[in-house]
Amino acid sequence: MQKLLQIDFPFNGPFGEEMSTVLAELAQSITEEPGFIWKIWTEQQSLKEAGGIYLFTDEPSAQAYLEKHTARLKSLGVNEVRARIYDVNQSLSKITKAPIK
Amino acid sequence: MQKLLQIDFPFNGPFGEEMSTVLAELAQSITEEPGFIWKIWTEQQSLKEAGGIYLFTDEPSAQAYLEKHTARLKSLGVNEVRARIYDVNQSLSKITKAPIK
Repeated sequence: MQKLLQIDFPFNGPFGEEMSTVLAELAQSITEEPGFIWKIWTEQQSLKEAGGIYLFTDEPSAQAYLEKHTARLKSLGVNEVRARIYDVNQSLSKITKAPIK
Repeated sequence: MQKLLQIDFPFNGPFGEEMSTVLAELAQSITEEPGFIWKIWTEQQSLKEAGGIYLFTDEPSAQAYLEKHTARLKSLGVNEVRARIYDVNQSLSKITKAPIK
């Protein structure tokens, strides 16, 4: 069953287009993670936070990615990572044009 | 600029298919909100929570919907609504196959 993973963490920047340039290679690598379907990159510059919302094919893939990404963030000095994994209500989401299968 | 709105709140159910039946009409009405693009319906039955992730065309639409939906939830007895509005990093999201324009 598809799972939605949300991650947020403190981030001092860069944001916007500068962030895009710095992290383009990482973004490309994320598309090759097992079970990965898509990621929306989220930013809240005023709060100095960044994160993402991901769709994975199943819970083990989402969990494995979360562990890998949390370790990567820790290696970059980000120690406070908030994450949640959600079930998706497929029937209601289809009515509201959600980008899921 | 497109904005992502996330909402979470305590919810005693119904979840899953029963929730779909009860809320199908509400789901249909949400698609007619100004600036609405899509909504993914999220559930965490083990935590007794429900919510959604929405894409809107712009921040005023997201804010207006949040106010309307918060009032609707309050009328149903849900007083604790957590909500955040995020910017989307379009360039990185395109690399990671995100369902945005």
